[in-house]
Amino acid sequence: MPRPSRWSEILVAAGEEFRERGYETATLESIGARVGILKGSIYNYVASKEELLLAVVEQPAKQLLAELDRLNQDTGSSAAVRLRELIRTQVRIFSECYPAAFVYLQHIGRMGGERFDEFRAMDARYMGAVEELVAEGARSGEFSLAGDARTTARAIVGMLDWMQHWFTPRGAKADRELADQLFAMALGGLAAGGGMHALARDLA
Amino acid sequence: MPRPSRWSEILVAAGEEFRERGYETATLESIGARVGILKGSIYNYVASKEELLLAVVEQPAKQLLAELDRLNQDTGSSAAVRLRELIRTQVRIFSECYPAAFVYLQHIGRMGGERFDEFRAMDARYMGAVEELVAEGARSGEFSLAGDARTTARAIVGMLDWMQHWFTPRGAKADRELADQLFAMALGGLAAGGGMHALARDLA
Repeated sequence: MPRPSRWSEILVAAGEEFRERGYETATLESIGARVGILKGSIYNYVASKEELLLAVVEQPAKQLLAELDRLNQDTGSSAAVRLRELIRTQVRIFSECYPAAFVYLQHIGRMGGERFDEFRAMDARYMGAVEELVAEGARSGEFSLAGDARTTARAIVGMLDWMQHWFTPRGAKADRELADQLFAMALGGLAAGGGMHALARDLA
Repeated sequence: MPRPSRWSEILVAAGEEFRERGYETATLESIGARVGILKGSIYNYVASKEELLLAVVEQPAKQLLAELDRLNQDTGSSAAVRLRELIRTQVRIFSECYPAAFVYLQHIGRMGGERFDEFRAMDARYMGAVEELVAEGARSGEFSLAGDARTTARAIVGMLDWMQHWFTPRGAKADRELADQLFAMALGGLAAGGGMHALARDLA
């Protein structure tokens, strides 16, 4: 049974170790060493590296699911406003759950085995929610897509997911500005600076 | 010294094995087994799994570099036309070097050691070229960015790089259409279907 006081330290250390050295390279011993737990004693807290990975990614996963439910219930707003909210939410989770959210993106898709099924199902649900949002915007005439809704949704999710290669938290205000730049880019593309950016900014 | 006839088979098998099972899980034996080379005999062709990874990614890497040089010399075209060409080129390499190009994207960034330095330098050069193209378009007034050129370039590269999670070649015509949809999305965002898509289509 993990002692609560060290458990949260171990979770933070595991997130950092997985992020910096990669899941395959990290060991329970190297994670323990980060918080001064002697080799071997880490097994008093956790049985396997896989169990620790699951524990690390649980927080960003649950937070994203809760936010998705909230967004899905917001049927009164336009598709553009909901997309802006989705992108802001995603950037906020990257920031609040840093680096655990990126450990999720880097490793969960490549893990085999039933224990990761629920996360794969969640990925599919997220992808489906973005596609549905894009399709709704197209049906209502708000969006006018160059391709099908699925390809468009994949372009948006790719833009966000790839943030794992360059994003670091810079505080709530700067992160919000970044999210809104990415939203303006998704909404208006490279033409987003002028009219489109103003439109993105002025959305109620 | 590799026998040329089996070497190309081994390269194809290695690309498929790395793509399907992941570099960490794949073994020289499992790759040899794909082309009927008995356990142990694979070492007559290649000394290590790392050497095989380098050989697999060499082709897409060289092709991309050559195309980048070609694009950089095309100073007579507008930034939009060059961006369209960059996206078409990227999709064509994904298709022609499938799955090797995706093995590159999935694994090269995470490999330590000097042997991978040249590929990391190439990644930086690619990123720099996209950023410079975006900045040029902004300076000339062709593009009007919501954020800085670097963030915009990262959004575009993310959209393309993330294709590793969903793209499979569907023939030259369908691949070209897909590339042009992604270009229209980058140029005009979700508003790309109407005027922007027509603009993207009508570019000389």
